[in-house]
Amino acid sequence: MEIDSKSEKTIGIIGGLGPQATADFFSRIIRNTPAKTDQDHLHVIIDNNPKTPNRNNAIAGTGPSPFDSFKHSALRLKQAGADLLVMPCNTAHAFKDAIVSVVNTQFIDIVDEAASHIQTHYSGVRKAGLLAADGCLQSRLYHDALSKRKIETLSLAPDLQSNFMGLIYRVKASGVNTEVRQAMMALADTLIDQGVEVVIAGCTEVPLVLGQDDLSIPLIDSTEILAKQCVHYARNG
Amino acid sequence: MEIDSKSEKTIGIIGGLGPQATADFFSRIIRNTPAKTDQDHLHVIIDNNPKTPNRNNAIAGTGPSPFDSFKHSALRLKQAGADLLVMPCNTAHAFKDAIVSVVNTQFIDIVDEAASHIQTHYSGVRKAGLLAADGCLQSRLYHDALSKRKIETLSLAPDLQSNFMGLIYRVKASGVNTEVRQAMMALADTLIDQGVEVVIAGCTEVPLVLGQDDLSIPLIDSTEILAKQCVHYARNG
Repeated sequence: MEIDSKSEKTIGIIGGLGPQATADFFSRIIRNTPAKTDQDHLHVIIDNNPKTPNRNNAIAGTGPSPFDSFKHSALRLKQAGADLLVMPCNTAHAFKDAIVSVVNTQFIDIVDEAASHIQTHYSGVRKAGLLAADGCLQSRLYHDALSKRKIETLSLAPDLQSNFMGLIYRVKASGVNTEVRQAMMALADTLIDQGVEVVIAGCTEVPLVLGQDDLSIPLIDSTEILAKQCVHYARNG
Repeated sequence: MEIDSKSEKTIGIIGGLGPQATADFFSRIIRNTPAKTDQDHLHVIIDNNPKTPNRNNAIAGTGPSPFDSFKHSALRLKQAGADLLVMPCNTAHAFKDAIVSVVNTQFIDIVDEAASHIQTHYSGVRKAGLLAADGCLQSRLYHDALSKRKIETLSLAPDLQSNFMGLIYRVKASGVNTEVRQAMMALADTLIDQGVEVVIAGCTEVPLVLGQDDLSIPLIDSTEILAKQCVHYARNG
């Protein structure tokens, strides 16, 4: 007998982008699910495929496209029973429309959810700071989602953005330490100094490093927002 | 283009038993993989299906069998491309032979790996203490695996075993706190007082609570051993 509440959706996670961020996202889905027993939790299928080519290099035109890998993951998850798909990687959303056009499945968009969260919960905000990877900036994912909501996006100065990418690759290579955390806080502070009213953790490696306590203004944690929305959509349609 | 090193195997995790233990196991696979970039990590597919009926009740004859749920997970993972399967739940291994007979895929057995680890790394040990769920004890999974290796298994006295199950369900319901940790340490100490030479964390919720620093003798962490062996088999066949 396989018990599966028909009123709940099965979540499919296109993961491995990177693996630590996928594990972090999975843990947040669990933490955000009201549950007293194992069986109260949601059915989640994860395709953690870190072999997917580097998204930033692809968008910069210096590496192969990750699209086929995303497409295979999405199809694999749908075939396995996923009713709604998510990608805990902001930059990967540059390929989201192409993925959705192939799999035709409900897809919860991390950038849309984060932008919508700012609009709903911080309605006075007009200037948002953005910590995101090069490919995410180049694709203007947040710039477009926020400008629709009359919010200006401020990203790091080019040399600092390059430092930011260095930190992200360090986290992927060897995890988080005090030096990485302080360097990331200093980057966020350069945005705060320019008058942004919130800082968006627009890369799923950022919340592995920074928490709300590290900033003097609200941190918009895209991983946490996506996890909460996932639980919401899985339980309520 | 989908890059996937043919020399590496894709790991399939029959998960959700419970979800926190699955997330913990996934994180340990990541931590135990030598990697400098995302792409160095292993392809892991997780079917986190917490709707699987309670294993302990099934083994006690008071609830429905989880077998069909395990079978569907295993088939789903195999179809999605998993080359080797694991279950980060000791008790679920009471159903392992039946699952393997259906899916016919390499299966890394958590109990065999933990027993083999003791034999290899603690060769003088003759008496092992066991913290494991009722269904795991009733199925004699560790008793059999260890007696083959001439090691005696000592489990908790019946009233303490009942306290242990209470703690496991508390961890599943509301996570870990100091009270739960101290109560679990006290249970382990009753085994140590009876002369066991190692304590086996033979339930994947135990390492969410106890670490080596909490015990005066070696803790045999079945989750960590399975994660390391998984990485080994996926990389080396």
